[in-house]
Amino acid sequence: MKFGILGTGMVGATIAKKLAGLGHDVRVGSRTRTADNVTFAEAASFGDIVFNCTKGSALRAVLEAAGPANLRNKILIDTSNPLDFSKGGMPSLFTDSGDSLGEQIQRALPETKVVKSLNTINCNIMVDPKRVAGGDHTVFVCGNDADAKKNVSELLGGFGWKHIVDLGDITASRGVEAYLLLWLRAYGALGTADFNVKIVR
Amino acid sequence: MKFGILGTGMVGATIAKKLAGLGHDVRVGSRTRTADNVTFAEAASFGDIVFNCTKGSALRAVLEAAGPANLRNKILIDTSNPLDFSKGGMPSLFTDSGDSLGEQIQRALPETKVVKSLNTINCNIMVDPKRVAGGDHTVFVCGNDADAKKNVSELLGGFGWKHIVDLGDITASRGVEAYLLLWLRAYGALGTADFNVKIVR
Repeated sequence: MKFGILGTGMVGATIAKKLAGLGHDVRVGSRTRTADNVTFAEAASFGDIVFNCTKGSALRAVLEAAGPANLRNKILIDTSNPLDFSKGGMPSLFTDSGDSLGEQIQRALPETKVVKSLNTINCNIMVDPKRVAGGDHTVFVCGNDADAKKNVSELLGGFGWKHIVDLGDITASRGVEAYLLLWLRAYGALGTADFNVKIVR
Repeated sequence: MKFGILGTGMVGATIAKKLAGLGHDVRVGSRTRTADNVTFAEAASFGDIVFNCTKGSALRAVLEAAGPANLRNKILIDTSNPLDFSKGGMPSLFTDSGDSLGEQIQRALPETKVVKSLNTINCNIMVDPKRVAGGDHTVFVCGNDADAKKNVSELLGGFGWKHIVDLGDITASRGVEAYLLLWLRAYGALGTADFNVKIVR
């Protein structure tokens, strides 16, 4: 399958490498074309499925550069978080608790199937859940399109995820994005990003 | 030991019953004295340790009624959440992501040792963690006073908690309060409040 990755940071690079290792065709997009990367628009146009791995604060510019037409009728997996580092110290969120980046993307791209996922873990765990607790922990998906969530869940299964919780429509992005505030504190307390939560019943 | 409970709702009643069952002396406070309850001020004055089990939206009135002098040098365990139900539908938070109820209480009561805990689970699990997954899951504490957190952790151990994660100072309340937005979505997806998260590494 053909994948486009928006963003050349650690998240984008890690997911791109994993997808290539699974035999997929991957193009990674950045603001400007380089020897290694295409443009946001070219990556979006190339992928049957597209990952958004850019910083939350860059959202508006990234979507404009990617081009809504290049994402029409496609699945866009949004891994971003609305972290506001501008005040120094521990980041806050730049979204109101009644909104989220996942919803902002879905509103900006009404003809795209936005699925929020993977934003609650470090990128190394995203593509290799077994590196903590034998893979016995939880990843979340949410979005408005049931078939898109099914496709994304299958893709996550290929990454090694066994415990995938569907939180509902794209408004559930508020929950997984707000969780970052707890993630950051747990990261500080544990002294490692190699952790996750498992939902237990 | 003597405990004061602020709030006669499900959380306050459940914790009061548990503490009494463990042999402690408990007085439950509400806005007005009734056959079953004392006032907020009487409960605060009575307790060596005091639980805040009131609604987040009532915070200012509760603290005023309890009386800062009645809580001086005591441990106040804050279980409240800043849920805003005023807009209908799924609640949002009425705090900014750079603040929290835990911090607001600590600022209002600088001579009280505020420890945030237990706000991330349903009240039945608060006092009986074994009712889900054999008790193998996580409760968080945070606060500015290390000894107070140690005392609260021992108390939680008496409730059956084995996995207690200290997230740091009271500003970590932002994390556990924001987590409620994820809790609410998981509650909807799972169809039960009998769940929790376990931090795995």
